[in-house]
Amino acid sequence: MDAILKHRSIRKFKPSTVDKALLEGLLLAGTRAANTGNMQVYSMVVTTDPLLLEKLAPCHFNQPASKAPVQVTFCADYNRFVKWCLQRNAQPGFNNFLSFLVGYGDAFLAAQNVCLAAEEKGLGTCFLGTTMYSAKKVSEILRLPKGVIPVLTLVMGYPDEQPDLTDRLPMGGVVHWQTYADYSAEDIDRMYREKESSALTKHLLEVNKKETLAQIFTANRYPKKMNEDISAALIEMLKEQDFL
Amino acid sequence: MDAILKHRSIRKFKPSTVDKALLEGLLLAGTRAANTGNMQVYSMVVTTDPLLLEKLAPCHFNQPASKAPVQVTFCADYNRFVKWCLQRNAQPGFNNFLSFLVGYGDAFLAAQNVCLAAEEKGLGTCFLGTTMYSAKKVSEILRLPKGVIPVLTLVMGYPDEQPDLTDRLPMGGVVHWQTYADYSAEDIDRMYREKESSALTKHLLEVNKKETLAQIFTANRYPKKMNEDISAALIEMLKEQDFL
Repeated sequence: MDAILKHRSIRKFKPSTVDKALLEGLLLAGTRAANTGNMQVYSMVVTTDPLLLEKLAPCHFNQPASKAPVQVTFCADYNRFVKWCLQRNAQPGFNNFLSFLVGYGDAFLAAQNVCLAAEEKGLGTCFLGTTMYSAKKVSEILRLPKGVIPVLTLVMGYPDEQPDLTDRLPMGGVVHWQTYADYSAEDIDRMYREKESSALTKHLLEVNKKETLAQIFTANRYPKKMNEDISAALIEMLKEQDFL
Repeated sequence: MDAILKHRSIRKFKPSTVDKALLEGLLLAGTRAANTGNMQVYSMVVTTDPLLLEKLAPCHFNQPASKAPVQVTFCADYNRFVKWCLQRNAQPGFNNFLSFLVGYGDAFLAAQNVCLAAEEKGLGTCFLGTTMYSAKKVSEILRLPKGVIPVLTLVMGYPDEQPDLTDRLPMGGVVHWQTYADYSAEDIDRMYREKESSALTKHLLEVNKKETLAQIFTANRYPKKMNEDISAALIEMLKEQDFL
């Protein structure tokens, strides 16, 4: 619980490597997460080789966190399970969208376990959502066979910074009791008030020359065109892999 | 770490209710999970009302775990974020597949935190993947507005059973170092040997009158036709919601 409440993303790491036995313990923690039907349709690819990390960094837009000494790429993986089915006279039926989502979700549960276990051991971590942005390129570098889709990367290493906890919406902004209570305009104002009035927001508005924080999200960070282009590439990849 | 390694799914609960302040602490733990760009594009709908739980149970095929006294339905939620953008003169561009996957993944990270926090507090938990199978019906019961998709349910309560840890593949079965090392037929045999020779497997083969454990997965639990039907319904729902 303590590790959960203290979580912050670390984007600057000491150059020190992480002991392999320690890493193995974290990966074991990943496998203890619940997973659909205990099929374990995910894989964890651990990359520590500096040359490979250098190749992977552009997939993650060379963001500072991509310079971490360890990258674990979590993948939805039907390659192994389907091979097993075929060797056991069973006809797999996993070439469909639901199966992709099952592998995707189970990979995220495992990833969160690895993240928490790493933090408890004194490591800093950061999730890179850019894995999905560059899924095809990541697949090539990590030599993923058909049926394996990279969905999320967790980088880790010994932290070389101590950031504050990041803000969150008030609990009333994300929790609903019994059924969903939709938000009025006033609710929205109230939920975002603290975030909008923070020193960080004021700084971001100045640097980005924007009127509102929301505009920074829609125009700078997650613009419609970028989201659409990546969506098109993902859909194409899922079709090539027979998941769509 | 201890909570992580001891995780087991609980499917039988005492009738006792769970204190609301305790639940709130668990949900707070959920919000501390990393999330994409700190947009928090997820919601947690907590259902404890017996009448609502009774309505939800068939969505989860009335499986024993669906009788738990608390159900938390995790949702990908762009309703709140888009309302905020529109109120702040920002043009949201989240009607696309990538955005759905972002909300879906972040909901899973939050869910795993809630699961671990609950277990640490002595509660038993079980994830219900059936939420996606019945996404439309769950949405109706929980009154989810457009832009909100239920993706995973975590049930919880005080445990009335003490199951053993479930088996996992050997670590070599799910971890790859540096790049993905594909499996030979012998690798597959070796990875699944322990699972296939367990007493549980022998029991399942007898009960289900099947030759191999893989056939139980493909013919009984996750048949192709069922996966395809659910996939078609999910794709239709995502299209209606402008995510596909």
